[in-house]
Amino acid sequence: MIYLVEPFGGSIRRQSPHTPHVFWDDAGLTRGDGIFETVLVRGGEAKNLQKHLARFARSAAALELPEPVGEQWARVTAEAVADYCRERAQDPAKIEAKCVWTMTRGRETTGVPTAWLTVRPIPADVLAQREQGVKVVTTPRGYTVEPDVEWLGAEAKTLNYAATMAALRWARGKGADDVIYIERGTERVLEGSTSSVIMVKKGQRLRTPAPGPGILAGTTQAAVFDYATKQGWKCKEKDIALGELYGTESVWLVSSTRICARVTELNGKTLPAPDNEAEIRELITKALN
Amino acid sequence: MIYLVEPFGGSIRRQSPHTPHVFWDDAGLTRGDGIFETVLVRGGEAKNLQKHLARFARSAAALELPEPVGEQWARVTAEAVADYCRERAQDPAKIEAKCVWTMTRGRETTGVPTAWLTVRPIPADVLAQREQGVKVVTTPRGYTVEPDVEWLGAEAKTLNYAATMAALRWARGKGADDVIYIERGTERVLEGSTSSVIMVKKGQRLRTPAPGPGILAGTTQAAVFDYATKQGWKCKEKDIALGELYGTESVWLVSSTRICARVTELNGKTLPAPDNEAEIRELITKALN
Repeated sequence: MIYLVEPFGGSIRRQSPHTPHVFWDDAGLTRGDGIFETVLVRGGEAKNLQKHLARFARSAAALELPEPVGEQWARVTAEAVADYCRERAQDPAKIEAKCVWTMTRGRETTGVPTAWLTVRPIPADVLAQREQGVKVVTTPRGYTVEPDVEWLGAEAKTLNYAATMAALRWARGKGADDVIYIERGTERVLEGSTSSVIMVKKGQRLRTPAPGPGILAGTTQAAVFDYATKQGWKCKEKDIALGELYGTESVWLVSSTRICARVTELNGKTLPAPDNEAEIRELITKALN
Repeated sequence: MIYLVEPFGGSIRRQSPHTPHVFWDDAGLTRGDGIFETVLVRGGEAKNLQKHLARFARSAAALELPEPVGEQWARVTAEAVADYCRERAQDPAKIEAKCVWTMTRGRETTGVPTAWLTVRPIPADVLAQREQGVKVVTTPRGYTVEPDVEWLGAEAKTLNYAATMAALRWARGKGADDVIYIERGTERVLEGSTSSVIMVKKGQRLRTPAPGPGILAGTTQAAVFDYATKQGWKCKEKDIALGELYGTESVWLVSSTRICARVTELNGKTLPAPDNEAEIRELITKALN
């Protein structure tokens, strides 16, 4: 299901998924000049909504796009999700889906942002990774983000994912499911291709690398840290050296629709399942409720 | 004018520019996962075609996209350009236009590449820069491309231009027309935002930075070097330090549709017009014939 969104706070209009809606001169297409968020739909509602709205707004600001109207995106998301659940004729409590928001700088000829949202099933391979975990290879990300370039907007979640897709093709060619990017030279852990890395340590401790150049602030990771802290876990944003991942209790990739996938193999080495695997999975999943 | 291109060597189909043709799940849109070339049309024909075809093929290979059929792209470009000239009802010798080829990885649901080409007038501000030159500010590009990441495909001309667009917004905010990227720390000259840098030195010598990480191989620059060499110029691909640009005879940004624009101001310092300005402009322009 796809809905076109009036970008300045207005309404949505249902669009046939069998009809194209993007013009040849849309900056989202010609330049990747746009932003997106992927939101989990569970139990009939969008999860972790405030953190997605906040990041969407930060992305827009970083790219000097018009500020998304948060109340509007919340409302159109709720409408679209309600349609989706009704048309699937299932108990909404049992429905899971993936809702993607996109806003581009729009057509060259109009200058008005193009915005839309989609709601669709979560792919089977993503669901499977929640249970089966993922095999991961590490790689430098191919470029080092410079920390102090005022115009760059590196903290935006843009449509520029060609390099990410190339990394995933490379990983799959090696029999792995995903990559974890590491900093060249230092082997400092950055992030997954489309996920944050959380390391579980002995003594109810969680750690993730602090967001910054090369590390996008994760909405799921933030929700997990908020919730886990309330449950008595010690949560810290602090550098992780690649070597630490091999010896820790468990390593997880977290992101909105996959929720979490345990890293079962890292660069060919098995990371054995911890005793508290089910507990960690429940902790992360509950953090999104 | 826009034409959809059958991606495996077939025909073109004219598409109304007032009708969208790209679907919500096209990887070119959702991931910037695609490639493009911008080709100058002059005197009724596409210029520098072989170099564009070669780079288009290299971009496709770098991104593991199907190999574009060069003979097809040459043919559909000729057809589209002929239509364009006929419908403008002008002497083709007087028509200039911009032809853009795009190929994406295609829709998620089909996996077939989406390909199209457009032909349209060259924007007035681009034409003006040929005569008036450009004011330029320098900046690090915000990220350093790592030279040895096998999967990255950094030599591809992809649709991932969000950072480039941000750099241009920043430059315009400073009253400049364009940027030249320089390497952080070393101040080595890389390239313009969408152009190659050519430095003209005393004694009929041209220099440009060698292509490599952070420097896309320029089709116009290559044509200029081929032609100028035949005219007795000494042409060299060699590192340029930023400081050298201030003292040299003249500095030019070259790219397919703008052809060339002399840098008249660099970081606020005037670069005076050289005695041979008209000669250089003619040399570069003739190189594309």
